Amino acid sequence: MAALYPSLEDMKVHQYQQAQVAQTTPHYPSYNVGGGGRVSETAVFDDVRGATASYPAMGVSQASDALVSAYPSLNNEYMGLKLEPPSGPVTIVSGSSSAVAVQSKGHVVQAQTAMVAPLTSQSLGLARANVTHGVREVIVCKDGKGKVGMRFRAVNKGIFVQFVAEGSPAALAGLRFGDQILQIDGENVVGLNHDKAMDLMTKCKNPGRIALGIRDRPFERTITLHKDSSGHLGFEHKDNQIVAIAKETSAARNGLLVDHHILEVNGQNVIGLKNKEVGKVLETAGQTVTLTVMPSIIYDHMVKCMDFSLIKKKQDHSIPEV
Amino acid sequence: MAALYPSLEDMKVHQYQQAQVAQTTPHYPSYNVGGGGRVSETAVFDDVRGATASYPAMGVSQASDALVSAYPSLNNEYMGLKLEPPSGPVTIVSGSSSAVAVQSKGHVVQAQTAMVAPLTSQSLGLARANVTHGVREVIVCKDGKGKVGMRFRAVNKGIFVQFVAEGSPAALAGLRFGDQILQIDGENVVGLNHDKAMDLMTKCKNPGRIALGIRDRPFERTITLHKDSSGHLGFEHKDNQIVAIAKETSAARNGLLVDHHILEVNGQNVIGLKNKEVGKVLETAGQTVTLTVMPSIIYDHMVKCMDFSLIKKKQDHSIPEV
Repeated sequence: MAALYPSLEDMKVHQYQQAQVAQTTPHYPSYNVGGGGRVSETAVFDDVRGATASYPAMGVSQASDALVSAYPSLNNEYMGLKLEPPSGPVTIVSGSSSAVAVQSKGHVVQAQTAMVAPLTSQSLGLARANVTHGVREVIVCKDGKGKVGMRFRAVNKGIFVQFVAEGSPAALAGLRFGDQILQIDGENVVGLNHDKAMDLMTKCKNPGRIALGIRDRPFERTITLHKDSSGHLGFEHKDNQIVAIAKETSAARNGLLVDHHILEVNGQNVIGLKNKEVGKVLETAGQTVTLTVMPSIIYDHMVKCMDFSLIKKKQDHSIPEV
Repeated sequence: MAALYPSLEDMKVHQYQQAQVAQTTPHYPSYNVGGGGRVSETAVFDDVRGATASYPAMGVSQASDALVSAYPSLNNEYMGLKLEPPSGPVTIVSGSSSAVAVQSKGHVVQAQTAMVAPLTSQSLGLARANVTHGVREVIVCKDGKGKVGMRFRAVNKGIFVQFVAEGSPAALAGLRFGDQILQIDGENVVGLNHDKAMDLMTKCKNPGRIALGIRDRPFERTITLHKDSSGHLGFEHKDNQIVAIAKETSAARNGLLVDHHILEVNGQNVIGLKNKEVGKVLETAGQTVTLTVMPSIIYDHMVKCMDFSLIKKKQDHSIPEV
């Protein structure tokens, strides 16, 4: 199976590193990380315009010889990023499929796909932003005023977290905008409106300990970008919405889409921040930036009837624990 | 961090198993899998209506004693599923955050979250359906007629795979409906329309070997359900769309949403199949079923201008390799 990467830059750098390893170790056998059963022998840096080459039938060492001699400047950097030549291959924990570790007595743990990430892996943001779509149990307790500090919104017969207040029990329990509430104190919430769902919270037999079944942000996904040498990611945003993508940038390479809203930067909620403030968060976010996004058409539905002055004043913007 | 599960049933069964382990091993220390830093001591089976109990301040062994004596029938089955009492705990590979394995020379591999899946893990469907949102390279070759067997659609300035023909080079390379094309032969496709993107394929310097940068199905996600004793999952579908959720079913518990389209069942494409055929696929899919879904509002956009007779006749429905 093909190796899998969080960003296109990770893919290119990994291919380059493998070509380098192949050059110094001509008979290195595990270079063939094919796409869908096929073999991809070459690591062609097509970003070096006008000098693109491909080697359909050449061996690994030939291809990497040609590559390294054609693009000597790639030895130590790629798109402004310093690279250390690897002494050995980057280990691929698994291909594009799942790794399954069998436990005793037929109990099995499912491990999701591992990604190869020579650039991105040094960023904590990817881990903080990680959207799993999995189910977990969260325990929240009411505060002194009998509140947990979140608001709900009913979408497509599901109940979603529309707002989490700063410092509230909901924020401390790690709940986020977009989390889907599956159960409140053991009751399924399917088909309820947000008032009925909130009633379940209010009427909970044990207000000091409400067990919530949570599905991690089903409408969201992450995309990881890398700044160029002048610090640009390559997109314009307005009121949290991505409105334009610049060509030949990390946003373009990685397929960032317009008509999407940016909800988090490296896992930190940025909803309701002013354009300048979002810009500042992006600026200080480091070389590698993981954005959590949602299609605007769904975002608009999710924040409908939401009091934006509340979001601006009290939205939780804490950095998630990893 | 809280343990993470592919389905709510996996969560309940795991909690039950842990309570059982705690009962037979009163001082078993690793039971505390809290939500967001909190401790969740009890495994309360709220699906057993009318006998719900909670134990806010009791120790683990007390809680599980009460649990097991209150619900003796849970010893060997849960919602019609046979369970073997575990001899030891199900291992949690990682919490809700990412596991990072540090390699030599600063090169690091990012492993995504592992899920605890006592029920689901026995299903190959989860692995086959796995949506990673990651980037990979795919090599496709043109067939005798100079075709690769797929159609594109431009959405939000990105290019997406709208159709993959059965037995085509695209199908053999593992491309799927909803995959985003990032690069064709090294060229970014951002902002192109589908004609221009197809031109890049046509004009490729080496038609026998076109390198595609692919992002795995960004608009899609999976949801895993478990059949009840009469084989029901708990939802109605029409023309691939989820139109209703039945209460107190796996679909309800897991937060399956209406106004979504089912694209795959256990990783197998079902787009364009008749209602009866989709029903048959669901019926024969085994006890655990993983659905790949997309919001209908985005699906409608993705298949616009698509020739549905082509989909009905030639759509690839092969079972993905794992």
